[in-house]
Amino acid sequence: MKSFTAIALENFPLIRDGDDLAKTIVDVALKNDVSFEEGDVIVVAQKVFSKAEGRVVKLGEVIGKSSEFVELVLGETKRVVKASHDILLVEDKRGLICINAGIDKSNVQGRDNFALLPENPDESAEKCRLTIKELTGKSVAVIISDTYSRPFRRAQVNFAIGFAGIGPFRDYRGKKDLFGQILKVKNIAVVDELAASAELLMGQGKEARPVVIFRGLADAISRSEKADMKALYISANEDLFKDTL
Amino acid sequence: MKSFTAIALENFPLIRDGDDLAKTIVDVALKNDVSFEEGDVIVVAQKVFSKAEGRVVKLGEVIGKSSEFVELVLGETKRVVKASHDILLVEDKRGLICINAGIDKSNVQGRDNFALLPENPDESAEKCRLTIKELTGKSVAVIISDTYSRPFRRAQVNFAIGFAGIGPFRDYRGKKDLFGQILKVKNIAVVDELAASAELLMGQGKEARPVVIFRGLADAISRSEKADMKALYISANEDLFKDTL
Repeated sequence: MKSFTAIALENFPLIRDGDDLAKTIVDVALKNDVSFEEGDVIVVAQKVFSKAEGRVVKLGEVIGKSSEFVELVLGETKRVVKASHDILLVEDKRGLICINAGIDKSNVQGRDNFALLPENPDESAEKCRLTIKELTGKSVAVIISDTYSRPFRRAQVNFAIGFAGIGPFRDYRGKKDLFGQILKVKNIAVVDELAASAELLMGQGKEARPVVIFRGLADAISRSEKADMKALYISANEDLFKDTL
Repeated sequence: MKSFTAIALENFPLIRDGDDLAKTIVDVALKNDVSFEEGDVIVVAQKVFSKAEGRVVKLGEVIGKSSEFVELVLGETKRVVKASHDILLVEDKRGLICINAGIDKSNVQGRDNFALLPENPDESAEKCRLTIKELTGKSVAVIISDTYSRPFRRAQVNFAIGFAGIGPFRDYRGKKDLFGQILKVKNIAVVDELAASAELLMGQGKEARPVVIFRGLADAISRSEKADMKALYISANEDLFKDTL
């Protein structure tokens, strides 16, 4: 048998603007009797990064998609993909295609406060990775996750919005299957699978478990010092699903 | 801390038409020194179900998307979503939106052989669940997974195509967040997250690890005797992403 373990830190404190998130993660891990190991992958919910980086904005009076909220979204937007009564889908300034530019208010304190995505999630992840390395001596990977709606399928799953210390893909193209046949298409977004997997423990409500540590996945992932979320972006022209919706 | 473990069975034998897959899973688990526990979630790769159910078809001479291959796909299709040089995206006869109706040849023996999806993945999963219950006395959930390309995002992840003994969603709508605010949108497709998570151990090549057992997720999932993949389908009109691609 081959296995991995996913460990969610519990009783994570509320994070405020200016908090050192990496240090908090290390402290809370200690209190949870969890010590980091070389090669661990740490998935962290976007919301705590946004809070630590002061990316929370207070709107005047927000009821539904008020003009002020739309303005906030557009301020984070490179291109509007669809604007309707039901959905404001944009390519955000980073290149991520996401609803409302990833802005939402769940688990953000204050009735009129909304959290924006971190300015540069890859940089946030890298800073976190380096601080954890400094504090613990261990080389880990860090993935920042957020919740995504998906075309063609009901309900949401978590995917990655930034990462550090890990290659985003496990690429099988050119490799062989069980019968020696060359695989032509399979290229797996392991950072998305890790984000999705972490959500099973994180939850979305009042669990206070924004950090999940994966152990035992050395074979499944590749380390990378030059990880880049842009590798997951796809232009409209490259997108196989162009003209399908 | 709160944790779960994912265990991949190793040295899984090649599956042939007529094999009792559930019995094979129980036998291989024994050889792996893994015994099933109440509440385990077992994710199984679609390909082994297809093989066990004789859903492998031999085409005459297939080079690329020959007319014979297209015919095979259309035989499984309710509605063509897009047909171009690059992609044949369909709503299959089950209601799943998938490329080539889920037909492919990776890990299928024989140069001209292709595997079709199980006729009714929910039924296949339920049969497997009942047999495991019979053989081990344990109530488990079974999810059948397949690999999906995704609009707006490069590379693939595994999602569910059928399941039994587990509710597909963890629905937070109407529940409260950390600050007592009511969540309005979050409804998580846990069966997809489990499928994605399992892929990290299964792989796509010659790993011979089509079965992954999850343990420790009782809080994250709900048991259900009436699970139905249709709950994950979404009609074009309901799809928030309509007119975005």
